[in-house]
Amino acid sequence: MPEPLTLHPDRLFPADPATREIARELYARVADLPIISPHGHVPVQWLADDTPFTDPTTLLLTPDHYTNRLLHSVAGVELEDLGVPVGSPMSPEKSREAFRIFCSNWKVFRGTQVQFWFESQFVDVFGIDVRPSAETADRIYDQILERLGTDEYKPRALYKRFNIDFLATTDDPCDDLAGHQQLVDDPTWDSRVVPTFRPDKYLEPARAGWVELTKQLGEAAGVEIGSYADHVEAMRIRRRYFVDHGAVSSDHSHRDARCERLADAEAERLFARALAGEITVDEGDALRAHMVNEQARLAVEDGLVMTLHPAVYRNHDTATFERYGADVGGDVPLPVEFAASLQPILSAYGNADGFQLVVFTMDETVYSRELAPLAGWYRGMYIGAPWWFIDENDAMMRFRRATTGYGTLHKGSGFIDDTRAFCSIPARHDAARRVDSAYLAGLVAEHRLSLDEAAETAVELVTTQPKRAFKL
Amino acid sequence: MPEPLTLHPDRLFPADPATREIARELYARVADLPIISPHGHVPVQWLADDTPFTDPTTLLLTPDHYTNRLLHSVAGVELEDLGVPVGSPMSPEKSREAFRIFCSNWKVFRGTQVQFWFESQFVDVFGIDVRPSAETADRIYDQILERLGTDEYKPRALYKRFNIDFLATTDDPCDDLAGHQQLVDDPTWDSRVVPTFRPDKYLEPARAGWVELTKQLGEAAGVEIGSYADHVEAMRIRRRYFVDHGAVSSDHSHRDARCERLADAEAERLFARALAGEITVDEGDALRAHMVNEQARLAVEDGLVMTLHPAVYRNHDTATFERYGADVGGDVPLPVEFAASLQPILSAYGNADGFQLVVFTMDETVYSRELAPLAGWYRGMYIGAPWWFIDENDAMMRFRRATTGYGTLHKGSGFIDDTRAFCSIPARHDAARRVDSAYLAGLVAEHRLSLDEAAETAVELVTTQPKRAFKL
Amino acid sequence: MPEPLTLHPDRLFPADPATREIARELYARVADLPIISPHGHVPVQWLADDTPFTDPTTLLLTPDHYTNRLLHSVAGVELEDLGVPVGSPMSPEKSREAFRIFCSNWKVFRGTQVQFWFESQFVDVFGIDVRPSAETADRIYDQILERLGTDEYKPRALYKRFNIDFLATTDDPCDDLAGHQQLVDDPTWDSRVVPTFRPDKYLEPARAGWVELTKQLGEAAGVEIGSYADHVEAMRIRRRYFVDHGAVSSDHSHRDARCERLADAEAERLFARALAGEITVDEGDALRAHMVNEQARLAVEDGLVMTLHPAVYRNHDTATFERYGADVGGDVPLPVEFAASLQPILSAYGNADGFQLVVFTMDETVYSRELAPLAGWYRGMYIGAPWWFIDENDAMMRFRRATTGYGTLHKGSGFIDDTRAFCSIPARHDAARRVDSAYLAGLVAEHRLSLDEAAETAVELVTTQPKRAFKL
Repeated sequence: MPEPLTLHPDRLFPADPATREIARELYARVADLPIISPHGHVPVQWLADDTPFTDPTTLLLTPDHYTNRLLHSVAGVELEDLGVPVGSPMSPEKSREAFRIFCSNWKVFRGTQVQFWFESQFVDVFGIDVRPSAETADRIYDQILERLGTDEYKPRALYKRFNIDFLATTDDPCDDLAGHQQLVDDPTWDSRVVPTFRPDKYLEPARAGWVELTKQLGEAAGVEIGSYADHVEAMRIRRRYFVDHGAVSSDHSHRDARCERLADAEAERLFARALAGEITVDEGDALRAHMVNEQARLAVEDGLVMTLHPAVYRNHDTATFERYGADVGGDVPLPVEFAASLQPILSAYGNADGFQLVVFTMDETVYSRELAPLAGWYRGMYIGAPWWFIDENDAMMRFRRATTGYGTLHKGSGFIDDTRAFCSIPARHDAARRVDSAYLAGLVAEHRLSLDEAAETAVELVTTQPKRAFKL
Repeated sequence: MPEPLTLHPDRLFPADPATREIARELYARVADLPIISPHGHVPVQWLADDTPFTDPTTLLLTPDHYTNRLLHSVAGVELEDLGVPVGSPMSPEKSREAFRIFCSNWKVFRGTQVQFWFESQFVDVFGIDVRPSAETADRIYDQILERLGTDEYKPRALYKRFNIDFLATTDDPCDDLAGHQQLVDDPTWDSRVVPTFRPDKYLEPARAGWVELTKQLGEAAGVEIGSYADHVEAMRIRRRYFVDHGAVSSDHSHRDARCERLADAEAERLFARALAGEITVDEGDALRAHMVNEQARLAVEDGLVMTLHPAVYRNHDTATFERYGADVGGDVPLPVEFAASLQPILSAYGNADGFQLVVFTMDETVYSRELAPLAGWYRGMYIGAPWWFIDENDAMMRFRRATTGYGTLHKGSGFIDDTRAFCSIPARHDAARRVDSAYLAGLVAEHRLSLDEAAETAVELVTTQPKRAFKL
Repeated sequence: MPEPLTLHPDRLFPADPATREIARELYARVADLPIISPHGHVPVQWLADDTPFTDPTTLLLTPDHYTNRLLHSVAGVELEDLGVPVGSPMSPEKSREAFRIFCSNWKVFRGTQVQFWFESQFVDVFGIDVRPSAETADRIYDQILERLGTDEYKPRALYKRFNIDFLATTDDPCDDLAGHQQLVDDPTWDSRVVPTFRPDKYLEPARAGWVELTKQLGEAAGVEIGSYADHVEAMRIRRRYFVDHGAVSSDHSHRDARCERLADAEAERLFARALAGEITVDEGDALRAHMVNEQARLAVEDGLVMTLHPAVYRNHDTATFERYGADVGGDVPLPVEFAASLQPILSAYGNADGFQLVVFTMDETVYSRELAPLAGWYRGMYIGAPWWFIDENDAMMRFRRATTGYGTLHKGSGFIDDTRAFCSIPARHDAARRVDSAYLAGLVAEHRLSLDEAAETAVELVTTQPKRAFKL
């Protein structure tokens, strides 16, 4: 007999009976509220075209580097056996075999968020009732496969069933946003799915390929880019294009959080060297910092919220990168520093009308030391929720404990799922709501907050807070 | 009907019933013990002159940057509407209006120490029984205003009522300490209020104004300062003056914890360049490090405890600094490093008779990594309690959990309120006592400490510990 | 009447009754499992010769810098009064007096792991039933002294009684490993005690004495070392010698985790400068990084697991070092960085067959930021358990909470006692098992793991996990 798979109604709640009872009461207020997802990686075309998903593996496993990296590290699985890179040919046999690998190594995910997410979506989305294992792999696979063939499991039907109220995708500045336009033009679609302006690679002038990218940017903007001023103008035009297509934010992920401005002439000089392919790495970093500063300045003009996701050592494992490309699980967080790095844009724009900066970290040391103190002073500064590696339960709890005392319960981004694993979105938001309910229940149990204050706060954390941080 | 405001007797205690019962028992031993406050910012003149406080706003709000910064950031309040900078003209109408702003935005402080402190002082000091809100603002204001007009609310009466046993102020090395002398000379005053020697700005030779400050220092000391040796002599004299007026410590807050010595000739050379206004920023930092080392050397002579509060990015928001000046809420902690930085003075004086160094941090990462290991070796090294941004409940608990295991339960400074918010002093110490009771109760509940050991420790943390760390 | 000393069966278990009950159940599965100790400092000669221990002080106090440093710092004890350095003449009177000092200052250890370890070994190993104090010192001393004179307390008897299944010592690359051979050759000894290859000082070419050490290394290997290639060959030979004598790992502790390779010619050039005594500190660091990289390369060949214990400021207190030598308590952890530092060996060998790297830290900030993400990608990368200063209860719990969510519950080293305090080994492993049981019980209580998953995991943490990490 396989082990049954069920979801305990009290999961993630504190063990203490009195605190748990309060957590239940708080959670009941938020469990069914709509999902606001202002930053993520779901392909817009899924919703635009509403094509049925083909099979469990390409939907649930292949694009999910959280899952793949642990199978690679702990179980010794090869990425190609999981269908990586995304888009690799995937026969029915290979899909089924990949799913068997996943289920057979279920133990690998013990105590991780991946376990929570899969258990939740298996039970709640696909009606699975047995624990994944070598024995149950085919049974689970078949059940999911069968459901994916029904209308109730097409992308738009799931979107509605997941109760998503707002979804942002992540897009290249040169993207024509046709998928988004398709949704806007579709009278049968009534939810808000918006693009996000993500210009990272256009802001790295010392990287290979930047000259060509700059040319493409110019073409997309209708600007011949021969100077730094032209580059700014092209960025202004493309940002405006995104605003016109519903975008609410721009997203930025560089190796550090530097954003100091250069003198105009120096910016032009470095830009010319970059166009000529002569810029050094250090000069490239300086010009990149200036360009990030420029994005903040443009944000004051066009109102896009600016989000920062810095300090990742991308493609740490060279051989894997060369074989499978980026975003397959080989990225590692780096230490980050914000107080000095962000001073140029915070001091210049941090209290300016309409400017909003949401700062994310995977370096938990900055929560109480830098992020909460900065967000507790600058009006436009918001603290990004635990992100990527740290969106697991204990880390989310540490986030609350490390920032609330500094007055930033009201200065958060709201939960950010940041995912391309579409079917895990409800589980991810559910985990955050459970952890926040548990956290607030603790404050009530310790008589640090009254129950009515906690209940109001719990609701705000999933409604007014993300709406304010992202200007929805 | 406004919401009532009451203080639950178990606030900040753990939810688990058995642990809570132990916490109650431990807290009962310390709740009413006198307050020792060896580092703070209460103006001595309040006690020397015993002039009644004029109004709720200038007493409770204007000088409190904890409160003001959150009103600024979260509620969008302008500092000037709160009476900032301290000493601004404050009409009765403006005072009342500022208090309304505060009460109307009460929600901003949810889950913060500011909430705890205000609830405590509102109930315990002023007898308020309604929760702050737009509706209750005037009622609370009037009640406090009325009380401030009575003899029971004059500074000395409150000092006695607060059960303060020892209070240190923070003072400029050139200060004549007349207020302290006034108290000493007053036969009706019998408590110990002492100055603290705070020479920061005299030790920053590359900062604007340093030459003039050096002149003033020389005048105060009766030394014509033409060389570094003269500077040391002037410092020795002024430190002695402070010792003679009761001081027990000197306090030092620079951007980092550097304290390496220079060769004598190099110190003289840099000092000459500084006097000539020619010193560079790097040279200034090197000379400053040397001067901090000199303060340690002088401490071995005169016995003043040396306290370090390093690593703050002061006046991060340039526009606010230019408009309102320093200390209004725009300071941000920086990462700090102690093991290498402090090696010069610890290796030289750390086990010397009479030398005591109390090191504070807002960078929690150094607790287990550097501070506890250093304090667990050097006899003269003490760990400063959670300070400034991190004197909130969860952070205080993290402090205990991150340092006790390394044997430094006995090497702490005792709680440091570090405040100019006079009426919050009892609440601040009460919070620390509650958190420590909760922490120790957890050790007892987990059978890591016996109840008698915990009870003795709880008492020592508020009696012998601060007395030993500050040589009282 | 002296206070009794007893061990509560629930010590270190959570206070919440339901969680505690689960912890008890999990602990029952692991409490009596054999001890695997793959890294430590017990002298092999104790077991080889099986000579009775002479007295309580030289066995329990003198070699234990955890204990001595707190007596030095908090109680002001002189190290020489505790018999430091190890091997100092120790009369019966001095031994007894040292033990009195220890017992009289028992309070110093309140809330520390030292308290837990001593309480456990006093009760479980020596049958002591009174709390240490000035009054009970002689009684405890006499009881231990008496037992040490019996056959049941000889080293081999204790080893058996402690249920140790595997023990690694730490050894110089030039050591002939005669003690280990003696055990192998002894038909009456049937347990596995193996050496560990610790080449640190041979890899620091800018340190005083390195030229002489290199000569000794050459002699031990039978290689005349005139070039870097010779040095590699000598290392290869000595590593092989250790493998042939049972070694399973090499251990490396330098000031940082650098390991970038040099070009071959550059390595030879720097090596020549080092042999000539002309290498600079920076060059020495570069060559050392290269040599550490070489150890990883050799590990791919010979299969020794590589363990890293970096980032300690050794002998921070210069005067103490000059008087008492190294390893007496004056070492302090430093901040460490792994993601960039370890990239050269991880990217090159991290997924290579047979290569295993176990990385230890005392800088807790790297757990979630760098170590768990790296171990969650690279197959050969394992996270070292909390080590040295951070092997106390709260820190061990933080370790689990900071790494499990990232999928590294299965990528740990298992508990590492790292001790020369032989009689504390059972207590150290017991503490780790209790903390892990408490941690896993919390996951079960919060419905994050089922009881059967937790029970299986608890057992694996002390059986298959260390066996896999150290290839046993």
